[in-house]
Amino acid sequence: MHTIDLSNYEYRTDLVIEEKVEGLEEKEIIRNTYDIEGIRVEEMNLTEEGSRKLHRKAGLYRTISFSDVTDKDQYRKVEKAFITVLKDLLLESKIKQTDSALIIGLGNEHSTPDALGPKAIEQVLVTSHLFQLGEVEQGYRKTSAFSPDVTGSTGIETGKLIKGAIEAIHPDFLIVIDALKATNIDRVTKTIQLSNTGIVPGSGVGNNREELSYEKLKIPVIVIGVPTIVDLVTIVADTIQYIYKHFSYKIDNVGNSKLKLVPENRQNYIDYPNTLTKEEKEEILGSIGNLDYEEVKQLIIEVLTPINYNLMVTPKEIDFTIDKLSLLLAQGINKSLHEHFNTTK
Amino acid sequence: MHTIDLSNYEYRTDLVIEEKVEGLEEKEIIRNTYDIEGIRVEEMNLTEEGSRKLHRKAGLYRTISFSDVTDKDQYRKVEKAFITVLKDLLLESKIKQTDSALIIGLGNEHSTPDALGPKAIEQVLVTSHLFQLGEVEQGYRKTSAFSPDVTGSTGIETGKLIKGAIEAIHPDFLIVIDALKATNIDRVTKTIQLSNTGIVPGSGVGNNREELSYEKLKIPVIVIGVPTIVDLVTIVADTIQYIYKHFSYKIDNVGNSKLKLVPENRQNYIDYPNTLTKEEKEEILGSIGNLDYEEVKQLIIEVLTPINYNLMVTPKEIDFTIDKLSLLLAQGINKSLHEHFNTTK
Amino acid sequence: MHTIDLSNYEYRTDLVIEEKVEGLEEKEIIRNTYDIEGIRVEEMNLTEEGSRKLHRKAGLYRTISFSDVTDKDQYRKVEKAFITVLKDLLLESKIKQTDSALIIGLGNEHSTPDALGPKAIEQVLVTSHLFQLGEVEQGYRKTSAFSPDVTGSTGIETGKLIKGAIEAIHPDFLIVIDALKATNIDRVTKTIQLSNTGIVPGSGVGNNREELSYEKLKIPVIVIGVPTIVDLVTIVADTIQYIYKHFSYKIDNVGNSKLKLVPENRQNYIDYPNTLTKEEKEEILGSIGNLDYEEVKQLIIEVLTPINYNLMVTPKEIDFTIDKLSLLLAQGINKSLHEHFNTTK
Amino acid sequence: MHTIDLSNYEYRTDLVIEEKVEGLEEKEIIRNTYDIEGIRVEEMNLTEEGSRKLHRKAGLYRTISFSDVTDKDQYRKVEKAFITVLKDLLLESKIKQTDSALIIGLGNEHSTPDALGPKAIEQVLVTSHLFQLGEVEQGYRKTSAFSPDVTGSTGIETGKLIKGAIEAIHPDFLIVIDALKATNIDRVTKTIQLSNTGIVPGSGVGNNREELSYEKLKIPVIVIGVPTIVDLVTIVADTIQYIYKHFSYKIDNVGNSKLKLVPENRQNYIDYPNTLTKEEKEEILGSIGNLDYEEVKQLIIEVLTPINYNLMVTPKEIDFTIDKLSLLLAQGINKSLHEHFNTTK
Repeated sequence: MHTIDLSNYEYRTDLVIEEKVEGLEEKEIIRNTYDIEGIRVEEMNLTEEGSRKLHRKAGLYRTISFSDVTDKDQYRKVEKAFITVLKDLLLESKIKQTDSALIIGLGNEHSTPDALGPKAIEQVLVTSHLFQLGEVEQGYRKTSAFSPDVTGSTGIETGKLIKGAIEAIHPDFLIVIDALKATNIDRVTKTIQLSNTGIVPGSGVGNNREELSYEKLKIPVIVIGVPTIVDLVTIVADTIQYIYKHFSYKIDNVGNSKLKLVPENRQNYIDYPNTLTKEEKEEILGSIGNLDYEEVKQLIIEVLTPINYNLMVTPKEIDFTIDKLSLLLAQGINKSLHEHFNTTK
Repeated sequence: MHTIDLSNYEYRTDLVIEEKVEGLEEKEIIRNTYDIEGIRVEEMNLTEEGSRKLHRKAGLYRTISFSDVTDKDQYRKVEKAFITVLKDLLLESKIKQTDSALIIGLGNEHSTPDALGPKAIEQVLVTSHLFQLGEVEQGYRKTSAFSPDVTGSTGIETGKLIKGAIEAIHPDFLIVIDALKATNIDRVTKTIQLSNTGIVPGSGVGNNREELSYEKLKIPVIVIGVPTIVDLVTIVADTIQYIYKHFSYKIDNVGNSKLKLVPENRQNYIDYPNTLTKEEKEEILGSIGNLDYEEVKQLIIEVLTPINYNLMVTPKEIDFTIDKLSLLLAQGINKSLHEHFNTTK
Repeated sequence: MHTIDLSNYEYRTDLVIEEKVEGLEEKEIIRNTYDIEGIRVEEMNLTEEGSRKLHRKAGLYRTISFSDVTDKDQYRKVEKAFITVLKDLLLESKIKQTDSALIIGLGNEHSTPDALGPKAIEQVLVTSHLFQLGEVEQGYRKTSAFSPDVTGSTGIETGKLIKGAIEAIHPDFLIVIDALKATNIDRVTKTIQLSNTGIVPGSGVGNNREELSYEKLKIPVIVIGVPTIVDLVTIVADTIQYIYKHFSYKIDNVGNSKLKLVPENRQNYIDYPNTLTKEEKEEILGSIGNLDYEEVKQLIIEVLTPINYNLMVTPKEIDFTIDKLSLLLAQGINKSLHEHFNTTK
Repeated sequence: MHTIDLSNYEYRTDLVIEEKVEGLEEKEIIRNTYDIEGIRVEEMNLTEEGSRKLHRKAGLYRTISFSDVTDKDQYRKVEKAFITVLKDLLLESKIKQTDSALIIGLGNEHSTPDALGPKAIEQVLVTSHLFQLGEVEQGYRKTSAFSPDVTGSTGIETGKLIKGAIEAIHPDFLIVIDALKATNIDRVTKTIQLSNTGIVPGSGVGNNREELSYEKLKIPVIVIGVPTIVDLVTIVADTIQYIYKHFSYKIDNVGNSKLKLVPENRQNYIDYPNTLTKEEKEEILGSIGNLDYEEVKQLIIEVLTPINYNLMVTPKEIDFTIDKLSLLLAQGINKSLHEHFNTTK
C-alpha cells in the first residue's frame, strides 16, 4: 500500500503578518516595538478594516525575537519576555485569573522539529483532576493539557479529537502550542509568535476542517507558535536578499578606511538596507536581479518542484533547541497561569 | 502543592476469572483448553447465570500463556496463537470483515510497565484518513488508533477523551489495549488476556467513570491485556503456595530413587499439587499454615500496609519485554484486521 | 542462536556492610550516624583488622537514607546531604581541588533500572576538552565522563573499556556511578551508598575481570551506588521479618488504650524491634519460625530456583525515580567538583 | 562559562571523490557503474598515482544511490545492494570469513542527524563475549561493537577511546559507521558511501588527532557513511546549478510540441546537462553567471558567514529516515558478517 505522508500537510506557517503592513494606516493596524532585557517584542493589532485589506484575521499578533535559546543567560531573558507577553495577551483577551485552561500541543512527538507542542505538554502543570479531589492550594488555576497527535498516526482528524476534549471538560479558554513553517529564514527557532486569532489544526484532507477560534468555539483561543522548519525556496530567496545587502554594504563603504580595520567576516550587514540600483542588481544577478522577492520565490519553486527538491529542512541542532524551547514554553505558561507556581519544580 | 499520583489508581487487574470457577456447572461456564504450537490457550465463556454467581461480567474470556516472549522462536508461536484467538473473538462478537475499528492504547507511555498500550498504538496500521482520500487497496479495513494518556498527565478523565474520539469517527467496534496488575505472579509478562466484556478506563476519581462496553456504547468492545506489575502481597502469598508445593513434592518423592538422579535445582514442581495435610502445613508454617490463600493475602496486607511496603513491582527486564509485547500485539492486530496486511512492514 | 543474557550477571550488590558489624570493636570499625536536615547519614570506616574479619574491603562506607526522592522538598535535602558526604569523602581520600576526575556511568541505558549511571553521565559537566582550548574559567576542575555500556551490548569487557579511557586521559581519580541489587527491600531507590573501596565492573565472564580500585589503578576510586532492583527471595525473607515486627508490636501493645485511637493502618512498626520469643515465632510460622534470616533466604532460594521464579524486580515507578536520582547525582557531583558551578544550568 | 559546541566540528564530509575525476586516466582511477535491482552503485578505485593528483587517499570508494529508504520496497532493494557492496569490499580488503570485527558507531545519539552510528550499533549483533563462553554456533563470526559518543559529551578525544577498545580486544578489522556532511544536496539521506581508506574521528581540537586507518592501525578499516546534513552554501550553489539545467531544458525544448503535453511540474530535468552558453548564463544570472561552482560557493560563504547564516540543516523527516537507515546498516552488516544470521531477528 502506498502510504501518503500527511505530516507534510500538517505544518501551519508563521503567525507573523508582515508583507504589506508598511502601507497600512493606523485605523487598520496598530504597531509597537519594545525591548525586555534586550529581547525584542513586536506588537501588531490588526483591526477589522486592516483584516479585510490583508486577508488575515483581525486580532492581536505578538513576536518575540532572540538569537540562541540554548544559551543559559538568553534563555532566562526570553522566558521573562514570554511571560510578560503571554500575561498581557490573556488580559487583553479578557481572560480572568480564575478561568480554566485547556492547553493543546499540536504535532508529532516522534518527529523532532514537530515535537514542540507534545514536549511542552509533558511539562505543563495540570490541576483539573486535583480540583475534583479538593486537593489544590490557593494561587492555582484549573488546567488540563492534551496532545492529539497527528492524523497520519491516528487516522482521526486532529480538530475533532480536540473538540471531544473541549466537550469533556468545558474549559474557559484554549492555549494551542504548535511548531510552524517559517516564511523567512531569520525566524527558524529564533522567534516565539503569539496571537489570539485561532488556528486550523486540520491536515488539509477533506472539507470538514475544524477551526479552533473564538468565532467557532465561543471561548478565547491563544496560539503560541515557533517556526522550526523552512523550505529550500525560502532559503535561496532569502540568500539572494543577503547578496544584495552584502554588495550594498561593500559599495557604500568602498572608501571607508575605518571599516578596513574590521575583519571581513565580522562586517555584519544583516540589518543593512538594500541600496543597490536597478542596474547594479542586474549587473550582479542578471534577469533575476529584476525580480522582486515574491517573483524570485516563484522562479525557484518552478526550478525545484519538478525535480522534487523543495525539501523542508530544520537546523541540525534541532534536538537541543526543541528541548529548551518546550521547557521554556511550558514553564512560561505555568508561571503565567498559576500565581503561586513554584519555579523550582 | 502536594500532587496525588493518580497513576496508582489507574491499573486495572487481571481479566482472568478463576477463583471459584471449579464449582460452576456447564450452563454457567463453558471451558476449553487447547494448544497452538505448544502455546496454551484457555477459553472461558461465562453465561448470564454464571455471571450472577461470580459477580463478573458475562462474556468471552481467553488467556494465552507462554514463558518468554523475548525468545525469537516463542515470539513467533505466541503471535500465531494471538492472531487465532483474536480472529475467533472478533467472529464470535459478530464483527464483520468490513467493520471499522478504533484501537485504544490505555496507559502512560513514560512509565515503562504502563507503556504497553501507547507503544502498541504507535505500531498499529491506521487507514481511516486514507479511505477519505480513496487511497486504500482491497483487503484493508478502516482503522483509527489513539492513546488518551492518563488522567494524572492530562487532568481529563480518560473515558471522556475516548468518548470524544468515538463521537468523532463512529467506529463499528473498539479494541482496547492495556497493561494490567496481576493477581498471580505466574502471569506477569507471561499471559495475554482477551475478553469482549469491556473495561472501565477511569482513574477511580469522581463518580462519573465511563465504562467502555457494549452495554454503554452499543458497539462491541474487545479488551486485550497483559499483566506487567504485581504487588508484594501477591508475591509473598504465591511464594507460600510454592513452599507447599516444594514440600509436597519432597515428601511424596522421599523414596523415589530415580528422582535422585535429577539435580535439585532442576526438580520442577510448578504444576505439582499441594498434597500436604493440615498438620504438615501447620508444622511447616505454624498458624499461617492454617490460613487459606485469601486469608494469607489479607494478613500480609495488614503487615505491609502500615509500613508503606506494599509496593507494586515489575520484572527488571521490563523494557525489553514491553518492546516485544507491544510489537506482537500491534502486528497481531494488523494481521487480524487487514486481510492483505504485509508482514514485512 | 541462544543468546545468554549477561545483563543478569552485571548487577553489583549493595555497598553496605551490616551483617556482623554489631560484634566488631572500635579498632575494627568506626561508626557514626548523623542527620542533615532530617536526612540520615551513616558512616562506617572499616579498618584492615575489621576487613579481615568481615571479608569486605577496608575503607570508607557512607549511606544516605530517604523515603521519596520524587518529592520536591526531599529532593533538595537529599541533594544537600549527598554533596556534604561526597565532598567529605573526596577530602578523606586525599583528593585535591585541582585533581582531574574521570566519571564513569556503569549500566545499560536501555534498561530503566540499570540506566542510572548512563543517565547521570549525560548530565555531568565535562571540561577536559575545554581546558585544552584554554576556555575554562576559574573555579572549574578538569572532568571527563564516559558510559562504557554493558558487555551484553558491546561484546567487550566493561573494565577493559574503562582502562582504555583511563589510559587516554590519565585522570587523578575516578568516580563510578552504578545501579545496585539490594540485599534489603528498604533500600531500593531509597538509599545512596558511597565508598572509596572500588568496584569490579566485569560481567563475571572469564577470569580476567578488571577491578577498579586504588590498589589496581594507583588513583582513588569513589563509587556511588543506588539499589534499584531486588530479588523475590529478599522480598519474602524481609516480609517475614515484618510479620515478626507486626506481631511483636501487637502483643506488646495489647493493653495500650492510647494506641487504640490510632487507626490500624497507621500503626507504623517499621523500626519496632522483634520481641517475639522462640515459642511465639514457632507458633506463628512453624518450623520456618526457627530459622534465622539467612536460613530463611536459603530455603526460599531452594523453593523458587527450580521453578525459575527468583525474579529480580523493580518498583513500577522506576522511570520517574531514575530520572530524579540521575539528575540528583549529576548535579551533586557537579556542585561538589566545581567550586563555581552554577546551579541554574 | 562559555561552552564551545564542539559537535560543530565533528562532522566529517562526504566520502565521495568526484570533483576532477573526469580528467583522470585509467592508471589513476578505475571507475565502474552498475545497477542492483534498479539501485545504482558507483565504484571508484583510486590508485597511488590518482591519489597524489587529487590529494585524496588511495583506496576503494563505493556509492549506493536511492531516492527514499522509508519506502518498504526500496528499503529491501537498497539493503540487498548494500550487502553486495559490503561483502565485495571485505573481500577486496582481504578480510577472511573468520576474521573478528570491531564495529564503531561515531556520533551523538542525542542529536537525530548525528545518531546514525550509535543507533546502528544498538542493532548490530555482538558475539565476542559468547565466544568466550563457547556459546556460538557455526556460521557466526566474532564481533564487538562500541559507540564512543562525542568529545563534547565525554571530554575525551574520540579516537583515543576507540584505540582503547582496539587494545582491549584486538580485532582483525574495523567497521566505522558515521553520519556525514554532504557536499551536494542530492546525497543527503540518499546515498550510502563506503570506502576502505579510513577516517579521522577527532574533533579538530589539539594536534593529536587519531586517524583510524590501515596505515596507523595495521588492520583494515572499512568506513560506511551517510550524509545527513548539508549547509546553506551548498543548497544555494546547487540550486543555481538547477536554475541552469532548468533554462537549458526550456531553451532546448522550446519547439518540442510533444513535451507540451507533459505538465510543467513533471518535466524532470535533474539529469539534463547544462547547455547554456556563457552569454545565456550571464543574461540569466549576471556576474554570478560567470562564476564556476566553486567560485559561487566562495561568494555565498562570503555573504552568509559575517551574518552567521551558514546553517547546517537536515530534512525535517530525519527521525524516520535515521530509524530506517540505522536498521538497514545494522541488518546489512549482520547479514554480511555472519553466514547464518537469521533475518527474522
